Order: sequence, then C-alpha cells, then structure tokens
Amino acid sequence: MSTILDVAEKAKVSIATVSRALNNQPGCSEETRKKVKKIAQELGYEPNEVARSLINKKTNTIGVIIPEISSLLSSEFINGIDAIAKQENSNLIVTYTKSNIVSTEENLRMLHEKRVDGIIFVSEILRKEYYEYIKRNNIPCVLLSTKSAEYASVPYVKVDDYDASYAATNYLIMMGHKKIGLISGSSADPIAGNPRIDGYKKAILENLNMVVEERQIVSGNGFGFDDGRDNFIQLIKQYPDLTAIFCASDEMAIGAISAAYKLGISIPDDVSIMGYDNLKISEMSVPPLTTTAQPLVKMAEKATEILFKIINKKDSDVHSIIMPYQIIERESVKNIK
Amino acid sequence: MSTILDVAEKAKVSIATVSRALNNQPGCSEETRKKVKKIAQELGYEPNEVARSLINKKTNTIGVIIPEISSLLSSEFINGIDAIAKQENSNLIVTYTKSNIVSTEENLRMLHEKRVDGIIFVSEILRKEYYEYIKRNNIPCVLLSTKSAEYASVPYVKVDDYDASYAATNYLIMMGHKKIGLISGSSADPIAGNPRIDGYKKAILENLNMVVEERQIVSGNGFGFDDGRDNFIQLIKQYPDLTAIFCASDEMAIGAISAAYKLGISIPDDVSIMGYDNLKISEMSVPPLTTTAQPLVKMAEKATEILFKIINKKDSDVHSIIMPYQIIERESVKNIK
Repeated sequence: MSTILDVAEKAKVSIATVSRALNNQPGCSEETRKKVKKIAQELGYEPNEVARSLINKKTNTIGVIIPEISSLLSSEFINGIDAIAKQENSNLIVTYTKSNIVSTEENLRMLHEKRVDGIIFVSEILRKEYYEYIKRNNIPCVLLSTKSAEYASVPYVKVDDYDASYAATNYLIMMGHKKIGLISGSSADPIAGNPRIDGYKKAILENLNMVVEERQIVSGNGFGFDDGRDNFIQLIKQYPDLTAIFCASDEMAIGAISAAYKLGISIPDDVSIMGYDNLKISEMSVPPLTTTAQPLVKMAEKATEILFKIINKKDSDVHSIIMPYQIIERESVKNIK
Repeated sequence: MSTILDVAEKAKVSIATVSRALNNQPGCSEETRKKVKKIAQELGYEPNEVARSLINKKTNTIGVIIPEISSLLSSEFINGIDAIAKQENSNLIVTYTKSNIVSTEENLRMLHEKRVDGIIFVSEILRKEYYEYIKRNNIPCVLLSTKSAEYASVPYVKVDDYDASYAATNYLIMMGHKKIGLISGSSADPIAGNPRIDGYKKAILENLNMVVEERQIVSGNGFGFDDGRDNFIQLIKQYPDLTAIFCASDEMAIGAISAAYKLGISIPDDVSIMGYDNLKISEMSVPPLTTTAQPLVKMAEKATEILFKIINKKDSDVHSIIMPYQIIERESVKNIK
C-alpha cells in the first residue's frame, strides 16, 4: 500500500504539501492540490488515522460507558451523543457494563488504552475508584443522567429525580387520585431509585396529608418491562384498592399495562398508569402513556457539548446542568374528580 | 507520563520482558512478573494501544455501518455484534447513514482511516462503489440483513424475505382470512421492500386463487411506527372490507394497532394484525403482536463470527447463511374459520 512519501516523491513536493493538499488546508496552490489529489488516487494512497493520532495525540474518538447497550433509554442517549460527536468529527466507542463493577473498570482501562479523547459516563454511580482512574490519567469526562459524589468533581447533566417524581405523583393527586401505588427501582440505588421513592412519598404527605404505607410500594432491582409486569401483579395483590400507579420508568409502565391487559383490568378506566422518561414507546403504547418526560436526547447532547468544551480546553464555562422535566398528558391517566 | 522504557530501566529487565510480564504471557518468571507489575503501577505506566496497533496492524476495533443508530431493530443487531466482538476482545465503532449514499461513503472512508479490522454492513444495498472501495482497500466485510449483488462477492447473513413473507400471509389464510391487506416498505427496495410484497402476492395467488388488487397494498418509504400508523388509516379507507393486515415490520404493526385504537377499531376482533421482525416491543404491545420472527441477535452474532474468521484468516469455511424465520403466535390475529 502506498504511503504519503510515495505521493510526495511522485508529485515532486514535500510531505507537508501533500498533507495540506489532501486535507484542503491553505498553503498550496490549486494546481498543486489537483495534481497531488490525482497522484494520491492513482497510487491508491489512503491516509492512516492511527498514525496521525499518535502524532496529534488526538484520536477523534470518544468513549461511552453505559449499563445496557440495547435498552430503549440507551438508544436515545446514544443518539444524542452521536449527533454532537458527528458535528465535532468524532466517533463513538460504546461499551456497556450491565452495572457490573469489574466490567466498568475494564471498560475504563480499555477506552484509555485506545486513547479516546474523552468519556461520557451514563446512568451509574461514579465510584471512587473510577474517579481516581479518570483523574490520574487526566481523562476528560462528563456524567449523563447521574451525578458526582462528594469525592468527585465531574460535571454532570441530569434531571432532578426527586422533583420530577414529586411532580408526577402530584399530577395523579390533581386528577383526583388518593390511593396511589408506586412501582420503583431499588431503594438502594441513590440515583434513580431512592430519590424517586422519596419524591413520591413527599407529594402524598404534603398534598394528601397521608403517610405512605409499606404495601403501597413495590421496589424491584431493574427498570425493565418484566420488572413492571411482575411488580404490577404483586402491587395489585397487596394494595387492591389503588386507583393509580406511578411507575419509575416507561418500560415498567408498559409492563404494568401489559399485565393489566392479561388480567382484564382496563387502563385507565380501572387503574390509571403514569410513567417516567418519555421514551418513544410511550407514544406507541395502547393506551398512549401519560408520563414524566426527561429530555433524553437533549441531555445527551448537552453532556457531549460539555465534554468537547473540556477536550478543546474551552473549559471556562464548564458546569453541571439540571435539565427540566415535563408532564406529558396522554391517555393512561383518568381524571376521577 | 511513564513509558515502557521507564518500567524496563527501573526493573532492570528488557522491554520485551515488561511486555510479557504485563500481558501475562509466558517467558518470564513469576517473581519478575510481580516486580514488573509493581513498578508499572508505581510509575503509573499505562499501555498505549494506539502505538501498539500501529505495530500490530490490528486495532481490535470493528466498524458497523447501519441506517439508524436509534431504531429498535438496530439495537438488537448491535447487541449481537457487540457480544461476539467482546469475546474477541474487540470494540465497535457504530456509524449510521440514514440510508444516504454520501454518509455511507464517508463512513466507509472514516472507518478505514481508523484502520478498523473489519466492517459489518447492515440492512442496506452494498452499492458497486462501496464494494469497490472495500475490495481496493482489502477490508474484511460481512453483510447483515442484506445480500450481495451480482458484482459483489461478500458473505451475508439474512432471512429469506420472500419465503418469510409468504409464510406470514399464509398463516393469515390458514386462520380463515381471505381479505388481507399489506402495509409494506417501498417497492423499489430490493432487500426488505419488494421481496416481501412478492411473497405476500404469491401466497394469496396460490392459496386463495386470487390476484392481489392495487387497493390491497399501501407501500411507504420507511418501516417505522409513523409509517404504520399513517398507512393503516389509508389502507382502511381504500380497502374497508379487509379482515387482516400483514405489516412488513413490527414497528409498522404497532403503529397500525395504535391508529386502530384511536379509531375505535378493536384488534383482533375487528381486524387482525401480523407483524415482521419479532422485536422486543412485539411482546410489549397490547394486544401482544403475532409476528414473523427473524432471529435478530443470532443473525448479528453469526455475521460477526464470520467477520472474525476472515480477520483471523480462518476463512476456509466462510460462506453466506440464510437464517430460519418463525411464526410467533400471540394475540393480534383472530381465527375466523
């Protein structure tokens, strides 16, 4: 395969001129540019970015560490990250961890070995050991849909889960519901689990003057369709007089609707269902899902913009961003006032 | 930052020994291995894979070219590709084209500049110019859910769309349906458009002795939820006496179900709906979708296994694979016999 040297020799110009000509940079005449391009094509010369990155110390690649590659939530995040990366002429290497610590550490090391220009770290707690690795190796990093702990100072982009959950529950209360169940993630999860449970409890305490009983909540481990389906069946059993359920993810809400369909329970006539996320499937469900929207693609875009500010050392105005949530009214919640 | 030379000097061993020790390769004593690892850690030495790839001519990265990064179909394919890549200690760079020729060419060039070890090319026609680029640059390539044209000899993994579509239509006929509409992709699409239309027509001709009329088919451009929703409304208008609809993708089928719900048309009591793909959402829909399953994750895994055979020059048994489809009975088709 031809090298840049072969092109330079045949064109009787310097290597620097070949590089300028092929990359459409100033500093060579239009005639030379044409000649160099023609010779490069004749010789089948293809630039090697691996070699270039070793010189530039820039690989034009950013890494993404995300719990699941195939979840519907991940798709939307990756879409937003990719859109900004593309604008910056960068590509993504997406790695997933299944929320496993060993995989996360391996992914971090692998991405650094590949000398990615920076990392977007999604939906998981940035544990102390991850943070220390990132800091020690001076890797630009932004957190998406998670926030930094007290030991870490890493910019993040997220919605306030507590506030959003409070608003979602309060919406059900305003629709006349008093017996409201919750299908949540794990109460041990400090990012998307616990704050959403607390927001729900607070709304019921403040606006219904009621303390939530244990039987009103089913907390699972995950946020998936199966969790929603199974937890719906459990919740209906232990709290049969409920009129509405707040689900801490859209996938769980769709699982609940599916379980209700099989049990002959009509949504929203018998039970109202409220989701969280506003995934694409929330419009696609029957009935269309009323939900608490996170601006997922925008969040991912913002996080990636911040990352490129850090990478390009335009970091004067780098700061974390709390994004707004929004209640999207569709057809899964009934007004019973 | 420390280099491998620093580690070698401090440990008083050769560079080759450092490499063997850190990569757990034979040829150094356990004692030396421990010492080298300790010193590497003390010096904060981190291997640089960019430098290594330039020497090895291997980047341990494979490229994926796919029409949409965020479609539900893509998620399942990427999941399968990633599983095998991980086993082979490789990572993915996923690029999407929105079925645009210029983007596809740019992605091909970019992936080659990054010296990916090979490319999985998904769901699009491998045009002559793409094939020539791949061949000229000697890039290992496998096609997934698309096949090579007469000018190209590139291995592929796919389901036979014509046969699967015939079987899906025939299933509706066996359930007693005689007035069957079709919501399809573009008839100009030689991969997932035309063959599925032809399979449908053939089943009706052979098993109902009827020639399909124009009003029985609505062909759109895409295979998405919106296409299904809009085409359902159109089809019901132009063919109001239909009892069943075969949709050429699950996303379109879910769109059709959603449109039916808004129009007060009950699925499957008024109209039966049959999908194609067996995406995760087909289980999640209300009613759960009867569909024509493609083994999406397995297809992606197979294609990636073939790619690694080519990359690792174990190409003695490289050949294209036609994967089996399967009719999955759920609750969206009514037996009216």
